[in-house]
Amino acid sequence: MIRAAAERARGHVRRTPLLSSPFLDQIAGRRVFVKAECLQHTGSFKFRGGWSALSGLPATTRQKGVIAFSSGNHAQGVALAAKLHGTASVIIMPSDAPALKIANTSALGAEVILYDRNAEDRDAIGARLSAERGLTLIKPFDEPLVIAGQGTTGLEIAEQAASEGIEAAQVLVPCGGGGLTAGIALALAETAPGMVVRPCEPEGFDDAIRSLQSGRIERNAAQSGSICDAIVTPSPGNLTFPIMQRLCQPGLAVSDDDCLKAMALAFLRLKIVLEPGGAVALAAALFHGQSLPEGDLIAIASGGNVDADMFARALSSLD
Amino acid sequence: MIRAAAERARGHVRRTPLLSSPFLDQIAGRRVFVKAECLQHTGSFKFRGGWSALSGLPATTRQKGVIAFSSGNHAQGVALAAKLHGTASVIIMPSDAPALKIANTSALGAEVILYDRNAEDRDAIGARLSAERGLTLIKPFDEPLVIAGQGTTGLEIAEQAASEGIEAAQVLVPCGGGGLTAGIALALAETAPGMVVRPCEPEGFDDAIRSLQSGRIERNAAQSGSICDAIVTPSPGNLTFPIMQRLCQPGLAVSDDDCLKAMALAFLRLKIVLEPGGAVALAAALFHGQSLPEGDLIAIASGGNVDADMFARALSSLD
Repeated sequence: MIRAAAERARGHVRRTPLLSSPFLDQIAGRRVFVKAECLQHTGSFKFRGGWSALSGLPATTRQKGVIAFSSGNHAQGVALAAKLHGTASVIIMPSDAPALKIANTSALGAEVILYDRNAEDRDAIGARLSAERGLTLIKPFDEPLVIAGQGTTGLEIAEQAASEGIEAAQVLVPCGGGGLTAGIALALAETAPGMVVRPCEPEGFDDAIRSLQSGRIERNAAQSGSICDAIVTPSPGNLTFPIMQRLCQPGLAVSDDDCLKAMALAFLRLKIVLEPGGAVALAAALFHGQSLPEGDLIAIASGGNVDADMFARALSSLD
Repeated sequence: MIRAAAERARGHVRRTPLLSSPFLDQIAGRRVFVKAECLQHTGSFKFRGGWSALSGLPATTRQKGVIAFSSGNHAQGVALAAKLHGTASVIIMPSDAPALKIANTSALGAEVILYDRNAEDRDAIGARLSAERGLTLIKPFDEPLVIAGQGTTGLEIAEQAASEGIEAAQVLVPCGGGGLTAGIALALAETAPGMVVRPCEPEGFDDAIRSLQSGRIERNAAQSGSICDAIVTPSPGNLTFPIMQRLCQPGLAVSDDDCLKAMALAFLRLKIVLEPGGAVALAAALFHGQSLPEGDLIAIASGGNVDADMFARALSSLD
């Protein structure tokens, strides 16, 4: 399915570069490569899953439109993928979502429907709209077509690493619901079996790390309070967790301060813009390598949708 | 020479992506593609010229080391290229150069020699060192191997544009001494003759634009006072100007405010970091398209070596 997703993505999904800097290598004490998915269309890897889901639907189904629940990167990925397929998308967001995210999602062609988090049931709204219009729900991670789309990142990593002469490495992946982590793990198991995939999460929101430890799906105590909001989910998915359990090694948790420092170093040394959640794997590579076996590191920089205030806060950590 | 430089660069110089965003297209009122040379090794296109010059020297000459006068991007490009070739580099900088630039250049393996701008003659220092050690001077732009190296950017643009189905476009290039502009113009004249190359400069430092108008090499009145310091030179080069005269169309000048706004939009929509001088072509594409014929625009984002304070200033233009 990942190879088929890559075939459908050709010419539409951007092949993002694998970046590096001798200055980052020096901080980590080993070579660090950064897969810059912040440069993907819509500023995050989510466009891969959105494109895969849209392009993988039967044409008659796709034509009726799609629906998603998201105020973040998944919303933009689905909206643009739908627009480029010439079909409608409905994105359901809480009415207190940031104005910029609402505006961006609308500008990408979506019909944004706002609901009151305290008074309305978003699932009921979604079910009604889907029934009325025949819309197909695109889930953010627990959906095979979406996992396959995110997995195309792994196929690119295998090719790009091979061209750098790298056969074995620790591959660090920002992990929310696990779609990107599971997709990359599946792709690399097949194409670069020397690669070890590890989920990276914010401290205190380490549901995937704890789930891998305990062997069953664990939940986060809180749903907010991390600056890494883009990758905070209640728990790993029913589809993604068994894949991670089979293919991933123990994960790494990083602090908010580590993320802000990683964002600043990505600015200074790689000239890319990362959001806090998109920087957790780079933070792990730069500041938590002591818990990893020797050898090269590959960190996925999964997204760059950050506002100017938060970015300025990250830059101030350079002082 | 450009094709030979590209051959020598294979596996060493990064193939930078051609980025785009529907939000930028909307501002410009047409499609805008951005060649992200800020993602090149050392954060600017200058590594291409440095690599070309080092790799193009006879081995016995290269082995004795190289020397350059620069406190900016050329210094870092030459330093890293020399280091990767296993040879020495001496970089001569004014003693009042920013500490970070001195540190970065040293960290890339160069021997940095500081001189007093008011009391010492840098050319005399350079001539003495070259004679004593047999160092080869790598000029920043008026040197065929360097122009050929910068021209590899043009070969990539031709291939990347073709894969997007673009045969004709206005290609906007940040222009200092003209090495990048002339190199790209030469490469495109051969490989994509539908492309029109135009130099872009800061207002008040528009020596190349005025030289193209008058038909002879014009000089800037001042050498400082622009935030686009990376691309401020006294005048176009003796080699680069005749090439630009033969192959380029009239250029565009942009204000400092335009550059800051372009930096902010590159942050917001492309997730890349640009320095002011690296943003002049994008600024021209976004805000000065009315003086250009219809059709697609390709803007070179030539560098991203900017400090946090200047970047924060650019971000504040989003308010």
